[in-house]
Amino acid sequence: MMTRLYFNDVVTRDGFQIETNFIPTDDKVKLIDALSHCGFAKIEVTSFTSPKAIPMLRDAEEVMGKIQRVPGVEYTVLVPNLRGAERAFESKADEFNLVMSTSETHNLANLRMGREKSFAGLSAVIQYVDARVPINVSLSTAFGCPMEGEVSQAVVEEFAQRFADLGVRGLTICDTTGMANPEQVKQMCEALLKRFPALQLTLHFHNTRGMGLANVLAAVQAGIVRFDGSLGGLGGCPYAPGASGNISSEDAIHMLDAMGYDTGINISKLIGLARQLPTIVGHAVPGQVAKAGCTYDLHPAPPYVEELRAR
Amino acid sequence: MMTRLYFNDVVTRDGFQIETNFIPTDDKVKLIDALSHCGFAKIEVTSFTSPKAIPMLRDAEEVMGKIQRVPGVEYTVLVPNLRGAERAFESKADEFNLVMSTSETHNLANLRMGREKSFAGLSAVIQYVDARVPINVSLSTAFGCPMEGEVSQAVVEEFAQRFADLGVRGLTICDTTGMANPEQVKQMCEALLKRFPALQLTLHFHNTRGMGLANVLAAVQAGIVRFDGSLGGLGGCPYAPGASGNISSEDAIHMLDAMGYDTGINISKLIGLARQLPTIVGHAVPGQVAKAGCTYDLHPAPPYVEELRAR
Repeated sequence: MMTRLYFNDVVTRDGFQIETNFIPTDDKVKLIDALSHCGFAKIEVTSFTSPKAIPMLRDAEEVMGKIQRVPGVEYTVLVPNLRGAERAFESKADEFNLVMSTSETHNLANLRMGREKSFAGLSAVIQYVDARVPINVSLSTAFGCPMEGEVSQAVVEEFAQRFADLGVRGLTICDTTGMANPEQVKQMCEALLKRFPALQLTLHFHNTRGMGLANVLAAVQAGIVRFDGSLGGLGGCPYAPGASGNISSEDAIHMLDAMGYDTGINISKLIGLARQLPTIVGHAVPGQVAKAGCTYDLHPAPPYVEELRAR
Repeated sequence: MMTRLYFNDVVTRDGFQIETNFIPTDDKVKLIDALSHCGFAKIEVTSFTSPKAIPMLRDAEEVMGKIQRVPGVEYTVLVPNLRGAERAFESKADEFNLVMSTSETHNLANLRMGREKSFAGLSAVIQYVDARVPINVSLSTAFGCPMEGEVSQAVVEEFAQRFADLGVRGLTICDTTGMANPEQVKQMCEALLKRFPALQLTLHFHNTRGMGLANVLAAVQAGIVRFDGSLGGLGGCPYAPGASGNISSEDAIHMLDAMGYDTGINISKLIGLARQLPTIVGHAVPGQVAKAGCTYDLHPAPPYVEELRAR
């Protein structure tokens, strides 16, 4: 039996969030519906942050109301606070994704509060939700902070434990700026799988320094079966202009499929979709397989080859 | 003890070969000298092919005559035939690198002859060299042919055996168009290391479909210690326009260094050099670390962070 892997595509939230030009609501809905039909286990649809803070996602309710709910696909949303949780309930999200950083400096820079204040706020959300909807917590900068540097595995485990104690269903361990290396990933994944066997553990990698798929490999070797990816590799890192952002869903899935894993994804549909992305966002995207084709997409030999072969 | 890895940079041969604008001889020499001082174990300097076939490398003799010979660095050259071997002897190359494809169609397309004719020609070169200089043979398309598709591991092993029987020192197993996946790499490397324990085995990956560093990881896990890389990831694949070519030396070395391997390379020198490459070739290059910086290159926190922290 092939190991079943579960992919969550984050392009319409994490990917679109940093795009400069507003992407029309209908384009978002169409893309999410198409992702649903590719076979993703989960799609991070949008974020219930303040529309002023992230104007790109100001249509969160409308998007959630218009998308098809394909059976077998979970539609998750980012929930920053109690107000966001109320909105997410009204929109009938399948999962609430809460987020904070494991680095104090990154949490201050990104969420404008310290980690303990974030933890208290997210605890209040978890209490308020009261198990009516499954909760996932994304722990940012778990493999390093672009401002502080090293984030110790002990700190990551400590926050993981505190959220596990609050009864969350899952944790996403995020390499927010592409600092993780495969050895570090192996150690982190082995420790977390051992310590939290009942939690859904998802790994979220960036390809900022080219290590994204190597880290996926290290994680899957350690026993991780859930991954975030972003169509086209969209979604970037403000600290690394010109560098890639999230790992490309199609590149990661293409690799794992070639290795013999069951990703649940229709790869040709997925690549077809990735090829539409530059038109949707108005610029080239980092994903490679959409440019190069799958390994099994063969090319014609030059015309002189048959003549030479006949000799 | 950290495992010692040995890197061969191929940018001035494999990388420059497909550039459209001639790169001045002095720029090549300067780059090779700088690579020597980064700590590479080997540098593939140039090719002794016909200057008509590859005008970019028409200055092969001049380049070989002008470069510094740094102790501990091997200066290897591509040798396609007997005439090339004579020229390589005159230029005092430390190693001759012979090349043929394991795919009949790719060999016909690339070298305009069948594999048996190539093998016979390379055998004649090996006899002519008569152990005066170590010989490496690069086996192209060992993980798949862009025109034929699958290349069986048995065929690769068969050609490896035939060259081993002729007394070559090393073999480079090339994923010429980025078709390899980590599972295939693991199987290939384990089989070859077991069957040819006395040969220097080098792995040559392309990042065409984003799997380059994942394949490096799989190979190093299998026990491979020698890798080709190309500064900046230069050198492409004519079958995948827009896609990456060779793995970037600096991205691979940065990853392996972060994992705790001894690469012998001064990484900050290497990245400084990679950052000069776009000026040398006149366009952007795929390597990521040169854009994003190393994981340990920290960024300043935004000014409001200290104020928030003080509260």
